[in-house]
Amino acid sequence: MAHSAPHPLSPLTGEETNRASDLILQSSPKEVIQFRMIYRQEPKKADLTAFLSLEHSGSLRPDSPRPPRLAAVHYVRAHQAADRKADEIEAVVDLDRGLVVKKDVVGTEYLAGLSTWEFDILVEKCEESSVLSERVAQFALPEGFEVVIEPWPYGGMDQPGGVRRYFQGLVYAVDTRSGNPDSNFYAFPLPIIPVMDFEKREIVRIDELATGGAGDDLVPAAPRTGAILDHCAPAEYVPELLPGGTRKDLKPLSVVQPEGPSFSIKDESLVEWQKWRFRVSFNPREGAVIHDVYYDDRSVLYRLSMSEMTVPYADPRPPFHRKQAFDFGDGGIGHAVNNLTLGCDCLGVIKYFDGVLCTPEGKAEKTPRVICLHEQDNGIGWKHTNWRTGRAVSTRRRELVVQFIITLANYDYIFNYKFDQAGAINVETRATGIVSVVNIDAGKTAPWGTVVNPGALAQNHQHIFCVRIDPAIDGHENTVVQNESLPAGMDARTNPHGNLYEVRDTPLLTSVGVDACPENNRIFKIQNLAKKNPISGRPVGYKINPPPTQRVLANPGSTQAHRCLFAQHHLWVTKYRDGELYAAGEYPLSSKREAGGVADMVARNDDLLQQDVVLWSCFGLTHNPRVEDWPVMPVEIMELHISPVDFFTANPAINVPSGKDTTSELTSGCCTRPKL
Amino acid sequence: MAHSAPHPLSPLTGEETNRASDLILQSSPKEVIQFRMIYRQEPKKADLTAFLSLEHSGSLRPDSPRPPRLAAVHYVRAHQAADRKADEIEAVVDLDRGLVVKKDVVGTEYLAGLSTWEFDILVEKCEESSVLSERVAQFALPEGFEVVIEPWPYGGMDQPGGVRRYFQGLVYAVDTRSGNPDSNFYAFPLPIIPVMDFEKREIVRIDELATGGAGDDLVPAAPRTGAILDHCAPAEYVPELLPGGTRKDLKPLSVVQPEGPSFSIKDESLVEWQKWRFRVSFNPREGAVIHDVYYDDRSVLYRLSMSEMTVPYADPRPPFHRKQAFDFGDGGIGHAVNNLTLGCDCLGVIKYFDGVLCTPEGKAEKTPRVICLHEQDNGIGWKHTNWRTGRAVSTRRRELVVQFIITLANYDYIFNYKFDQAGAINVETRATGIVSVVNIDAGKTAPWGTVVNPGALAQNHQHIFCVRIDPAIDGHENTVVQNESLPAGMDARTNPHGNLYEVRDTPLLTSVGVDACPENNRIFKIQNLAKKNPISGRPVGYKINPPPTQRVLANPGSTQAHRCLFAQHHLWVTKYRDGELYAAGEYPLSSKREAGGVADMVARNDDLLQQDVVLWSCFGLTHNPRVEDWPVMPVEIMELHISPVDFFTANPAINVPSGKDTTSELTSGCCTRPKL
Repeated sequence: MAHSAPHPLSPLTGEETNRASDLILQSSPKEVIQFRMIYRQEPKKADLTAFLSLEHSGSLRPDSPRPPRLAAVHYVRAHQAADRKADEIEAVVDLDRGLVVKKDVVGTEYLAGLSTWEFDILVEKCEESSVLSERVAQFALPEGFEVVIEPWPYGGMDQPGGVRRYFQGLVYAVDTRSGNPDSNFYAFPLPIIPVMDFEKREIVRIDELATGGAGDDLVPAAPRTGAILDHCAPAEYVPELLPGGTRKDLKPLSVVQPEGPSFSIKDESLVEWQKWRFRVSFNPREGAVIHDVYYDDRSVLYRLSMSEMTVPYADPRPPFHRKQAFDFGDGGIGHAVNNLTLGCDCLGVIKYFDGVLCTPEGKAEKTPRVICLHEQDNGIGWKHTNWRTGRAVSTRRRELVVQFIITLANYDYIFNYKFDQAGAINVETRATGIVSVVNIDAGKTAPWGTVVNPGALAQNHQHIFCVRIDPAIDGHENTVVQNESLPAGMDARTNPHGNLYEVRDTPLLTSVGVDACPENNRIFKIQNLAKKNPISGRPVGYKINPPPTQRVLANPGSTQAHRCLFAQHHLWVTKYRDGELYAAGEYPLSSKREAGGVADMVARNDDLLQQDVVLWSCFGLTHNPRVEDWPVMPVEIMELHISPVDFFTANPAINVPSGKDTTSELTSGCCTRPKL
Repeated sequence: MAHSAPHPLSPLTGEETNRASDLILQSSPKEVIQFRMIYRQEPKKADLTAFLSLEHSGSLRPDSPRPPRLAAVHYVRAHQAADRKADEIEAVVDLDRGLVVKKDVVGTEYLAGLSTWEFDILVEKCEESSVLSERVAQFALPEGFEVVIEPWPYGGMDQPGGVRRYFQGLVYAVDTRSGNPDSNFYAFPLPIIPVMDFEKREIVRIDELATGGAGDDLVPAAPRTGAILDHCAPAEYVPELLPGGTRKDLKPLSVVQPEGPSFSIKDESLVEWQKWRFRVSFNPREGAVIHDVYYDDRSVLYRLSMSEMTVPYADPRPPFHRKQAFDFGDGGIGHAVNNLTLGCDCLGVIKYFDGVLCTPEGKAEKTPRVICLHEQDNGIGWKHTNWRTGRAVSTRRRELVVQFIITLANYDYIFNYKFDQAGAINVETRATGIVSVVNIDAGKTAPWGTVVNPGALAQNHQHIFCVRIDPAIDGHENTVVQNESLPAGMDARTNPHGNLYEVRDTPLLTSVGVDACPENNRIFKIQNLAKKNPISGRPVGYKINPPPTQRVLANPGSTQAHRCLFAQHHLWVTKYRDGELYAAGEYPLSSKREAGGVADMVARNDDLLQQDVVLWSCFGLTHNPRVEDWPVMPVEIMELHISPVDFFTANPAINVPSGKDTTSELTSGCCTRPKL
């Protein structure tokens, strides 16, 4: 098994990243190049499954065929003529052969995903802009306040003509008097948005924002000037700036694992735990990706990933219709990913995975601890008491968690892939961070948001996630079956007492977008029709229960809605094609309409019966902010369950030990007086 | 504050229980009495709130008025004439005055809730019944197998005439050859159900069960005889009987709290934790009840409880339409409650509360550790990273959990009231235990269930819970407002770009049953219209997000549906009346129709605007069993969130310390090889 070659599912190493950029630079000696991202190009499924089946059967040899080791390299090529738009290139480098095998230029109808160095340029150009500084001067900021530019994608292009590489900056002011660089500037919003034409490296416009409320015009009659922040108030969250400090009555609670974790890691990416085995990789577009998931030597999933999310804002006043982030697709989450901290982001014994990003020069940049792996206890797993004997058998529910966290300007998102001992995989999202606020006049309120701090209106918005599930239920030929429980008529022959309900299966025959319907207990089974469960006689499968959350609310005729067609259904089912990984398509940045996303894939009307199917589960949160969401919001937790249904011949967790935890302690509670 | 009198919310002590039964016995010297339950009669709200407001304001004096200390005493009074039905009495004893203040006879149209001693009699009568033993003898049980009777309520009366005190026994056989009394008998179901007339103490009938499947007649042509279990197979869950033993690769994971818990207990029932204060009590009908909930000296809830649950089964074959449990109302969960075990049912430092039940003779019977109180870590609570400085502030989400667990024959339910640091209360239910199975012929399957073990068909069913929420949002005059997010038309004046959505509030003016509608993001705010949030200007409130689970599926014309009208809506809102605690009414046992439940309360059309409102949240699980639910099912978790919405002026958890846990450890994962 000792191959010197990396496993095909291992992310690129730093050396491979540098080799990939070197090959690009060598192949283009006269060009001025800036790199966006370099990551392992997903192998073709046919190549990878051939390799994996050799691997799983133990018949892999040093000379067995392997998928070519490919690097995807996204970069910008400047034109000689300064006034011409730069080309965006998406190249593929074959690292085995040392060859650039593809150099595609991104069509001018699309914008390539943004890079954080572009945001740095936006901030720089704002700082240099005399137009902007003159405009800011009209606000008479309080003493000690300095302007902060919060770079944002421009949102959906609403002008006629093609998309242009624009960025916008939300503008806040920070109170520097504390000397603390983490003083919360979001509490002090200024009602302007500078817009930069990136090709020109120029602030081309300053959008003026209305600061009124209910009943006021949507467009300001005149730019606001004067003391715009005097009715605002601080809202700190870093502990040293909290007026009352932190609470003192919370005693430590620790997770200890004296014998170490129950998981093992091999080969840098192979995780084995409690009959599960899978690989974990990291890339700058999707974050942590789960591959080749097996339970007890049976295949469950080929791949599991966060495909996309969008956050459209509902303040009708221009230009807020352009506030719509695609937090994965706008530019990838590579530089937005948190470097996790021991004892903060999870407890117990933790394995961290590092990531590799790249600099604009194409140099590999190690980003430490982008994924953590740990176990957690989640209460009782199963329990039964025999009331005759009084014997209780109670097991704990242990979970293995693959976690990554991203920060996109004000918001922070926590993603957990959680494996349990009963054969289920649960994808958990937690939304936290700081709600996006705009300046509102003293004493006013607005129907499109909530005043969460004096002078600060948090705008209503939605967060809609898409989880991509590429199943492999005992093989790649799977069928998705809608399963509903429906009322049944009363009838002397079939339902004499009216207690029957009908359980109806409806296979999805062609690619489709479908919706949750909790009133019908609608679930979707992913079955392998060729394999029956020996106990129940039904096809082996897993089920997903699409969370029945609200779909996108923006008017179907709006640019916001056009850009996220994926958010119009709870579940899309498509037939697998290499390269189709992103629900809103490859290029959502400033798109006018989702292109190459799930809606387009579904339009092929592919046959789905016993095919290589892919499921896209879209769910989210309509977030009309509460005052309690400020200044940093408590986590809003959502969860997608992927659970076995007649896949196993019994509860796979039935043999989890039921022994007592010996460190638990009794307390009367009477001797502690934390509050008095 | 040192009163010798118990707090009005403290459960009855053993001494009080004994005094109550003594007073009943003294008041009825010639009667033959068997006690069912004795518990603290809930004080009238007017009396209790008067007391509590003195208490909260610190102005309670030893001679302040207190609600009378009352005991509810339910008992059976035998008639002198042996052939007459016994009277069911619900008495109230004033313990302060030593007087029986009420003796109501339960109307003959109702059955009083059952007691476990009645189940003992059912088992005894089955054992004595020669008719039953002769019938069983026709089955030719395998050597070493013995009959087990599983007592059940009779379900909805389907005969003409009044309800009668019938019980039924499901019949299984246990393999005694292992000598282990916890061998799983559910794997060996026999197709008969003996029915007992309790008044006559007689097995009056044996119902014969069909053992066919799809396409077979619903009623068996003839009773089954012969080798009925030969196609069944063992399905053990106690660790010493598992064929392969328990898994060996799970390393210990412990929760340690070296400085003790963060909560304190006073007065036996007052819990203080992280700005929360509330009282916890126990009674045999509802289990753990939460009272008088305050956060930071502001009133949130008056009372929170599990009001009812029903489990209707959907096998259309008679007599399975009578399989419908009301796990709280059939007889209370007093003797069904688990005595919790350190290190099994929760981890860390645990406070247990004992309960007091009574014997048929009226003697107090202490039942230890019926409620546990502990803290748990639930991941990240809030987090924000300032990408400019790289500074991450991350807090853990600590929860305080009040837990109780009940076992009702095959099923086990775990109930958790979870308080968090951000002001929310979450009610969690976990369904586990053993699914109810019936015998099915070898090779057959059925649309109304799943074959989960050879010869064992787990019937489809639902579990529908009702949580009763008696709010007191800054006082008792509250209003429930339906809040929805709705699409808005595009319109140059109000919504020029189509990104607006409308947030619509609709107050509930009169008592009503309403439904979840996730497609509209429908939530319900409980507001105090008299008090505005100083930041947002909106009324202070809490919200509930009714879980949009499937409502009762039984045909509306069926007895099953009539018995659980409460399960026809997701949320009922009524005006408070003393004594109205049970969603399906006081007497669901063998009822034909819900009486005095939420449907009847709502029919009063009470005005709800700024009134003392009560909310009843009904949610559940349509459970079409999986093979994985066998032999003991992994927990199915559901959760109801009761969260502040503009109640506070900021995130109440903002001052939770963000310090690192110092016991967390790094691992490479490489040195452990649990699986190999």
